[in-house]
This record gives sequence, structure tokens and C-alpha cells, in this order.
Amino acid sequence: MSLGILYLFPGPLSETEIEIVLPKHNIDLIKTIKHFIAEDAKTARRFLKLCAYPNIQDAEIALLNEHTESNTVGSLLEPLLKGHNVGLMSDAGCPGIADPGAEVVKLAHKKGIRVLPWVGPSSIVLTIMASGFNGQNFAFNGYLPIEKDKRVKRIKELELFAVKHKQAQYFIETPYRNTQLFADLLASLNPSTQLCLGINLTDAAQQVITKSVSEWKNIKAPEIHKIPAVFGIYF
Amino acid sequence: MSLGILYLFPGPLSETEIEIVLPKHNIDLIKTIKHFIAEDAKTARRFLKLCAYPNIQDAEIALLNEHTESNTVGSLLEPLLKGHNVGLMSDAGCPGIADPGAEVVKLAHKKGIRVLPWVGPSSIVLTIMASGFNGQNFAFNGYLPIEKDKRVKRIKELELFAVKHKQAQYFIETPYRNTQLFADLLASLNPSTQLCLGINLTDAAQQVITKSVSEWKNIKAPEIHKIPAVFGIYF
Repeated sequence: MSLGILYLFPGPLSETEIEIVLPKHNIDLIKTIKHFIAEDAKTARRFLKLCAYPNIQDAEIALLNEHTESNTVGSLLEPLLKGHNVGLMSDAGCPGIADPGAEVVKLAHKKGIRVLPWVGPSSIVLTIMASGFNGQNFAFNGYLPIEKDKRVKRIKELELFAVKHKQAQYFIETPYRNTQLFADLLASLNPSTQLCLGINLTDAAQQVITKSVSEWKNIKAPEIHKIPAVFGIYF
Repeated sequence: MSLGILYLFPGPLSETEIEIVLPKHNIDLIKTIKHFIAEDAKTARRFLKLCAYPNIQDAEIALLNEHTESNTVGSLLEPLLKGHNVGLMSDAGCPGIADPGAEVVKLAHKKGIRVLPWVGPSSIVLTIMASGFNGQNFAFNGYLPIEKDKRVKRIKELELFAVKHKQAQYFIETPYRNTQLFADLLASLNPSTQLCLGINLTDAAQQVITKSVSEWKNIKAPEIHKIPAVFGIYF
């Protein structure tokens, strides 16, 4: 019996209409899948509803999130081993990018299961596109440390690395700490360093703004408290 | 007079139908734009044709590529300063990612022009999603050095950095040198290092395969000569 395919389905980042952020193909394909892996069942069902999935109650949604014991991740592959295709979904954005999905993808490769990624939104990727920073050399660093001293040290390390290696540095924060991170960046970075903010990506209110630290200090701070944002620095 | 908006339009990577890789929204929006910036006029017109752009001969396509003098990039913004929206297109994939577009985006930010990125395919992003590597920490390094000694040194540096900082490392090569790069990777990397190949992304023949270097050595090498590919390493 042949193995199923693990499809990676990006999900919407905002309340924007789904036709704005996903190719029609994904919406059609997702309707043909019965088995899903998702971070959160409620978010997954909402996404299926947006795709006009025919019988949402029949979709089998297995969970992969911070509560999943690593020794149980293998069981998520069972439908694939029985020949069923499985859709891996992200709560928001692309599976495998700043998302727990990478763990099951890794195991799929070990089992020789075919992994097929589909096009969709990622706030990180959209910010990288629109920052105006070096697009030939960039890094995404996930979350910075929360503890003040360690965070400031890390910000300065990333700034130095960006200059030394001409590598743009991107990172994120839990939205309710965005304002604090922005303040820490303005206080710690060199005035001439360029700071990019990608805010509310794919939403009607989306903005990607790049300014030097000294320019940011001279204007009203953007509203980013509890709002999804991606941060980037370059010189 | 208000400034125009600089829209970033990803373009197809393969001969695949456009509905597979682009949201309907992009295809509708692109038809409303008259001014474009592209790497190559012929590729740009082919893309407009795929979008069923009404009068391709009326589209004004300004070029931004390796032949563009950096002191003339500013002139590309002229329609924006006159209030017209401009579409920045990539030859393949996302503008601003491994593409000369970043230069004009940078200038747009300096002039206070709004930059709006739209969703679309990127072989680099699709490979990152499907590699199974760390999705919280990764870097894209562009092209590796061509000269043998420098290239091997760089491969080993990236491998060491990946292990030390838990940062997955991605890079690309000119397609006609892919086979040589793959051979250099197998010869230079530790046998236990994981090597990911993203091949022919979005095409019907697309594959993303992750195996250890020792596993790759034991199987027939994939066909990547003159075929678009993205390489990734992790441990």
C-alpha cells in the first residue's frame, strides 16, 4: 500500500477574505482531505468553514501544539502510513515557520512520506519582502529573551551581526509585549540602524514601515500593543 | 497630491497554472495597475498575460536588474511621486527575496511611499516550510562562493553555525551548478548532518526531501542539473 502525502496548508493571518491570501487551488484541495493536524481544533474548523469544507463534523483533526508530548508526535503520521493524505495546518501563516508543525514534518521525512507545501501568507515572509533590507541574506530568530538584560544583549548581538555579515535580522514577540520590545529596540540600537515593523499583515490596516532608529524616535510610536507584528533590523 | 502605493507582486516559479500559486485577489489587482517595475520585460509581459491583463501593450514596464545603475533606481519611483500605484514584480517568486527588488523598496521607504506586499510563491519559503528543520530560527544565505576552497570553507562554517546556534541554513546556486554544489555538500558535510533539497517548487514534479548526508550518499542523486533548487542544512 502506498503512503499518503503530507500537505502543508497555510492559514489566514487576519479576518481578511480568504481569496486575498490563498490560491483557489488550496481551497479546492483542502475540501478533498479528511485527516488534519492542527494547533487548535476550533481555529482549524473556522479555517475549514472559510474554505466551504462540506462536512466539518466529519473532518478528523489531530492536535500538535505545546501540550503534545514529543513521543506521541509519531502517532500523527498513522493515517499517512495507512495511505491517507493528511493536511497540516497552522493557526496563522505557514506550517513549519514559527509554528510547531516542523516536528511532524521532520518525522514524515524519516518515514519517507512525501511532503508538499502550498503557497500562503506568512507575516514574516511578507515583512521580509517589504522591508527593503538585504533579500539575499537574512535570518529569522524567533522570540528574543524576555529578561531585560538578556534581551538588550541579544538586540545588540543581532545588530552587530547584521552589520558584520550584511544579514538582515528578523524576530517576533508575543503581541502583548510588542510595545515593550519596540521601546527596548529604540533604547538599545544605534540611531542610524534601520528598524522595520510589519504590522497587521494581510489585514486592510496592514503596514510595513522601515525607518532609522532616530527617525522612529521623532514620530508617534505605531499602535502595536496586542497587534501581530514582525520586527527587522539592518543598517 | 497623495503618493501612489508600491505593490509587491510575486510571480510564478513554474509553468503551473496561476490559480495554484496566486490568490485571485492578486490577479484582479494587477489588472488595475498601469506602471510596473520588473527584472525582465518579456517575463513581465508573460506574467501579465497569465493574469489576463487587458492591454499588455499599454502597461509601462520599467526595468530593475543587474544592469540598472544604482543612481537611476530613484527614477523608478517617479510614477509613485505623481500619485500612480506601481507593481513591483519578480522574475520568479517574491520581490525582495533573492531578487533585485529590495533596492527600490528601500528607496520607497525613504520617500515615505507605502509598500504593500501580496502573498505568492517563493521556492525558498516553500523549502523552509517543508524541510522539517527548525522553523523558529533559520537563515537564507543567498549564493555560496564559486571558488572550490572558499565554497568548502563556507559550507563548513554554515554547518558549524547551524549546530552551535540551532539555526537552519538555506542557500541557492545557479541551476547549472547545482550538481556540483550537491557533490561538494556530500563531500564536505558531516555524515549525520541533515541536508534538504527543495526541487522544482510549485511544479507538478516538485519535491522537498530531507535526508542525512550518509543517506544521500547511499541513494541515486536527484536530477537537479539546470533545475531550480534550494538547499538547506541542519543537524
